[in-house]
Amino acid sequence: MKHLNVAMIGSGFMGKAHALAYANMPVHFYPAPAIPVRKVVVDVSPELAKAAAERLGFEESSTDWREVVNRPDIDIVDICTPNDSHAEIAAEAAWAGKHIICEKPLARNASEAKTMLEAVTAAGVTHAVGFNYRYTPAIRMAKKLLDAGRIGKVLSFRGHYMQDWSADPNTPSSWRFSKATAGSGALGDIGTHVVDTARYLLGDIEAVSSVLATHVTERPASSSAFDQLASGDRSGSGAKVPVDVDDAVYSLLRFSSGAIGTLEATRNARGRHNYLGFEIQGADGTIVFDYERLGELQVMFANDRDDVQGFRTVQAGPFQPYGDKFWPIAGMGTGYLDVKTIECYEFIKAVTEGRQAAPSFEDGYKVELVADAIQTSASTGQWADV
Amino acid sequence: MKHLNVAMIGSGFMGKAHALAYANMPVHFYPAPAIPVRKVVVDVSPELAKAAAERLGFEESSTDWREVVNRPDIDIVDICTPNDSHAEIAAEAAWAGKHIICEKPLARNASEAKTMLEAVTAAGVTHAVGFNYRYTPAIRMAKKLLDAGRIGKVLSFRGHYMQDWSADPNTPSSWRFSKATAGSGALGDIGTHVVDTARYLLGDIEAVSSVLATHVTERPASSSAFDQLASGDRSGSGAKVPVDVDDAVYSLLRFSSGAIGTLEATRNARGRHNYLGFEIQGADGTIVFDYERLGELQVMFANDRDDVQGFRTVQAGPFQPYGDKFWPIAGMGTGYLDVKTIECYEFIKAVTEGRQAAPSFEDGYKVELVADAIQTSASTGQWADV
Amino acid sequence: MKHLNVAMIGSGFMGKAHALAYANMPVHFYPAPAIPVRKVVVDVSPELAKAAAERLGFEESSTDWREVVNRPDIDIVDICTPNDSHAEIAAEAAWAGKHIICEKPLARNASEAKTMLEAVTAAGVTHAVGFNYRYTPAIRMAKKLLDAGRIGKVLSFRGHYMQDWSADPNTPSSWRFSKATAGSGALGDIGTHVVDTARYLLGDIEAVSSVLATHVTERPASSSAFDQLASGDRSGSGAKVPVDVDDAVYSLLRFSSGAIGTLEATRNARGRHNYLGFEIQGADGTIVFDYERLGELQVMFANDRDDVQGFRTVQAGPFQPYGDKFWPIAGMGTGYLDVKTIECYEFIKAVTEGRQAAPSFEDGYKVELVADAIQTSASTGQWADV
Amino acid sequence: MKHLNVAMIGSGFMGKAHALAYANMPVHFYPAPAIPVRKVVVDVSPELAKAAAERLGFEESSTDWREVVNRPDIDIVDICTPNDSHAEIAAEAAWAGKHIICEKPLARNASEAKTMLEAVTAAGVTHAVGFNYRYTPAIRMAKKLLDAGRIGKVLSFRGHYMQDWSADPNTPSSWRFSKATAGSGALGDIGTHVVDTARYLLGDIEAVSSVLATHVTERPASSSAFDQLASGDRSGSGAKVPVDVDDAVYSLLRFSSGAIGTLEATRNARGRHNYLGFEIQGADGTIVFDYERLGELQVMFANDRDDVQGFRTVQAGPFQPYGDKFWPIAGMGTGYLDVKTIECYEFIKAVTEGRQAAPSFEDGYKVELVADAIQTSASTGQWADV
Repeated sequence: MKHLNVAMIGSGFMGKAHALAYANMPVHFYPAPAIPVRKVVVDVSPELAKAAAERLGFEESSTDWREVVNRPDIDIVDICTPNDSHAEIAAEAAWAGKHIICEKPLARNASEAKTMLEAVTAAGVTHAVGFNYRYTPAIRMAKKLLDAGRIGKVLSFRGHYMQDWSADPNTPSSWRFSKATAGSGALGDIGTHVVDTARYLLGDIEAVSSVLATHVTERPASSSAFDQLASGDRSGSGAKVPVDVDDAVYSLLRFSSGAIGTLEATRNARGRHNYLGFEIQGADGTIVFDYERLGELQVMFANDRDDVQGFRTVQAGPFQPYGDKFWPIAGMGTGYLDVKTIECYEFIKAVTEGRQAAPSFEDGYKVELVADAIQTSASTGQWADV
Repeated sequence: MKHLNVAMIGSGFMGKAHALAYANMPVHFYPAPAIPVRKVVVDVSPELAKAAAERLGFEESSTDWREVVNRPDIDIVDICTPNDSHAEIAAEAAWAGKHIICEKPLARNASEAKTMLEAVTAAGVTHAVGFNYRYTPAIRMAKKLLDAGRIGKVLSFRGHYMQDWSADPNTPSSWRFSKATAGSGALGDIGTHVVDTARYLLGDIEAVSSVLATHVTERPASSSAFDQLASGDRSGSGAKVPVDVDDAVYSLLRFSSGAIGTLEATRNARGRHNYLGFEIQGADGTIVFDYERLGELQVMFANDRDDVQGFRTVQAGPFQPYGDKFWPIAGMGTGYLDVKTIECYEFIKAVTEGRQAAPSFEDGYKVELVADAIQTSASTGQWADV
Repeated sequence: MKHLNVAMIGSGFMGKAHALAYANMPVHFYPAPAIPVRKVVVDVSPELAKAAAERLGFEESSTDWREVVNRPDIDIVDICTPNDSHAEIAAEAAWAGKHIICEKPLARNASEAKTMLEAVTAAGVTHAVGFNYRYTPAIRMAKKLLDAGRIGKVLSFRGHYMQDWSADPNTPSSWRFSKATAGSGALGDIGTHVVDTARYLLGDIEAVSSVLATHVTERPASSSAFDQLASGDRSGSGAKVPVDVDDAVYSLLRFSSGAIGTLEATRNARGRHNYLGFEIQGADGTIVFDYERLGELQVMFANDRDDVQGFRTVQAGPFQPYGDKFWPIAGMGTGYLDVKTIECYEFIKAVTEGRQAAPSFEDGYKVELVADAIQTSASTGQWADV
Repeated sequence: MKHLNVAMIGSGFMGKAHALAYANMPVHFYPAPAIPVRKVVVDVSPELAKAAAERLGFEESSTDWREVVNRPDIDIVDICTPNDSHAEIAAEAAWAGKHIICEKPLARNASEAKTMLEAVTAAGVTHAVGFNYRYTPAIRMAKKLLDAGRIGKVLSFRGHYMQDWSADPNTPSSWRFSKATAGSGALGDIGTHVVDTARYLLGDIEAVSSVLATHVTERPASSSAFDQLASGDRSGSGAKVPVDVDDAVYSLLRFSSGAIGTLEATRNARGRHNYLGFEIQGADGTIVFDYERLGELQVMFANDRDDVQGFRTVQAGPFQPYGDKFWPIAGMGTGYLDVKTIECYEFIKAVTEGRQAAPSFEDGYKVELVADAIQTSASTGQWADV
């Protein structure tokens, strides 16, 4: 069986998720299109890199991503670093002819994303951007229903992604609160997942009218080199640093198809932890999804008998997309790792078949175009074309 | 005990709701501030009016609203007619010195609403507009929590009202699909309920950015003089008539308080029947309401212990507003009629105490200002100030 | 239109519900089979009776139920008193030739219920027992689906009725905690509703294996003549009185049809307010109901396509039983009063048509047979035949 | 770091789950107490065993479990075979001094389980039985709340485990439908999970009153050597074979603590896929869990303020047991594999620390005592002591 050597750059929370996905994919998807080999992991210090290799099952560790990316035995470069380094690493990896999977958002803005797309296109490698949620089996099921016309012409899309880990003003700062590193705040971090989901399910977005808000304008500096997210640390090192990105974004969307949409994303929604979801209303039915109950899809068909019409709660299982690859009974529990494992499978399959993955850097770039338009609209107070 | 004679103009679905509310209010709210007496009901033909009197428990019937409104024995005029007649009837009633409760929306537009407000203000009568949903006990509970600061500074409001009775293109037309009669479509019919709820809970809206959509541009003419709503008639008389109002409205909202909001209203949302609701995110908690489960309020407090934080499903009952007036146990079932009964109580109480009701014509006018701004924004593609 | 004069004995919480049902029924069910006239209300003191007449809209009041029951102008006797007086009042009313509706449970035990059934049978009057919940539109819908074979052969029934108003050991005592007055505790008060629902939907119960529990063995004496239920009074008059009835009942059920069931009823279930519900599993589908969301029925059909199978949340509305009598749109809110209004309609209709109501005293008696068997089983530790 | 060599006997659905748990555990639980090494996998044919080794990441494969179990380099024997071989394999492994984890139910009956317990006790090895669901973070959270007295004295337990994969009479037979191989049907397969959960949370069960039912008395023979579960095969090889085990079990439970319980388990509940759950009512609160939404726990505290009391939906995350070992944000998705990974961690930790795991063979034996009592009660129609 074909093996593909992976170099992973960055070993934080996302690195862990990717490492486990590489390990689990060939077990669930058997026989796998190819076996990903955890060859080398890169982090900023030798200690961190070595610990990551041990923990995450990589054969080697390094602090020199550039050297690693250029190693002839590496087939795949997996970019799990903060947003500001994506472009440079991707360019180098493309130049070296490596296939690339890059965590989302692809870049800090569309212009940066464009250079990345150009690099991978010129290199002719397979590229993917880590908008993993579109691989959730229930979302795949939604796509299947839409493609089959089961809810008719799509009229509207209500998308949201709400978290609360930064709602507390004492949650420490991190690279996610810095425009220089992250590009934007909730918009880039989680709003782009909504944009990707919307594009995946309904197609391109043409124009937006948007508002951005920053509810907490300064935060304690972090006492940790790591992204703390919802760790419960609420004081950091004490000193205050300014926040120059958005906490929340609200937008109207106009799709090329004529459908209308709304997008709401915030990291300050008390009680919403990973509340990514949507409601798609069609002429003949409605589909509703909420990632906090990721094993379920709500579907309503207008051609059901009048007296027993209602939203059906469909549980992900053997009869839905990818369901036969996991557990033999519905309702056993789809986890985050399963979603990342499917993402891994689709990327490795694309690499093996010598074709583009989806979502690709092109998708990542188009998402950035929407994100840029949202920022433009928010600052001009006008609709902005994408 | 004081009695107040009511003349009700219009005896359709809303007339029935009001009549029952007059009958039930003094039983639930005992002793009532005054007893409303169902004196005379007016409709367009003697047959309809007579049948309404018999069915709805009015002592007399008439087809001449103007004469009735001017009768010296009438204390209250209750306007349950289509939107295009509100202004004329209200003006006459005000001139005659009657207290007025007028179904929503107050008028077809802000200018018409303004004349009505001027008339009742000049007459010094008590006036109310029938945005009944704000009387839902769970919404009153939300207000109480907001006023007590239980969720801290309010950051955002997501409001929606979705129905599906007109989703089928063969649902017959009615006055609700005509700009001349209704003023607007989903916007005026149900979107205004969201606006009223938003204003009730968060205060004034300053500016909007909006889109309107008409999904079904012509419908079969109705074969009935009555509003069929979700009766299941899907062919009407056969002939097609054009629709010149919106089926759906989507809007961003900017509140005077600085909070940001979204509003979505549509009568074409398959599977959503009376899906009025909101999510209010505050710095210290979140409140969620869905009228399709009107007996429940979801509340989340950020100061709950970390390990047992979560949305609480609070059932309306004796410990919430008005709860002690209905049934002695929570979860027995709050119905639409109960909401209308509370509305009736608050109006009669205001009349008895010689003060303004809430929502008053002033509220109704301010809602129309928002609705006008939404239409302006939708046509200009710009934010519109209210 | 035919009028029927009602004498109501007892004016507590149930009296209020019945009075409103008499008032509202002819408005919802138009034209009504007959108009119930609130003629006279009886309570224990002249003051209470007079206040009840004023509040509940009765023409007259009295303290002498025996005299009232024998008045020639009375057509219907409505018994809303505590359980220990049902038998005597019903016997007198039957002897006087009155139609009777008696609140549930019919009696304190089967033997007492039997004398009541014999009295009304001998008198040839129409009789009904107030197991009102079976009139809930969603339960009617369940019955319709079962009768149409939509879920195939019924395999099992899980029924429960859980409340929490007496969970606090300081909730004062009342007649509901006394065997002499009530016959039994949670079993008679709410467990019998489950038995009635089970019999309505699945037919007769043949045998039971049961446990009873009394969690709170003494309570403060009440400081009020009235049933406080969930009023929040948690101290009463201070003095403690013993409790000699059950707080909770658990039972296995064997139906004549071969189906197996479970019954759980308790008034000490924290957080459960009026949690009456069931799950009925059939060979081809499942139906689930929870009264705390009384406007919804959950139904699952095994012949739905594998990939979109799931529980449908069907909202009560115009397309379900009685739906066209209330509001023109689903999801507007079914309340407790609506359920009582339907009960009133069915009883008045039966009286008008000169036939038996359902549930009748015979049903009430059969429920008592099951309740007696449950007590027998609980004390012998053996299965008991009904 | 310490390594422990694992020999896994059986490579079906459970083998896959265990293999992934061995791989993932040291990544989530870092540093792990020891690293489990997938040394050798055993299955019935060389082809199956070899394929399993390749797929599941074992170094070697074999068809001779006895030889493997006796290899000196093996530290742990993991038994994933059908129930009828558990005892023999466990005895051999104990004799060889290996630590043992055995899938549930431990045996076909209590007598068989007893011999197993005696064998491991004599050998002084660490032993565990695979009632994995008690490791679900939400169930651990429930335990924590119970132990802290957060809901006061426990009054009752309602437990259920419902599936529907065998509801269709054409679902093929397998070893799960044979008393000789499985011991019992739904009782042993899934009912025992409820018993384990009940014992874990409330302590020992003293007596039961039970009913068993077999709804489908013959099924098509399977055309596969494998357990098909919910694969959708509905015809098998065509020939019919008898079913001699139960499809469903219903039982009353009496706990040593005085609490009362109910247990319902069936594999024929249409629409219920992996519906394991419970409701625990205490004097001061209630806890509700449903595995089909395994990332959530419902908790209600009676000492919350009256007006905002209600069930809290707590999402598993960093603040609940094991939450810090998985993902940094609540609501990201707990999957079945995560539960198995926690089970693996606790077993490896116990082995490393030279102490007993929980649940141990003793727990497995006590569960069998309850299962035996349920069968006794079902056949005698009497309560049976455990």
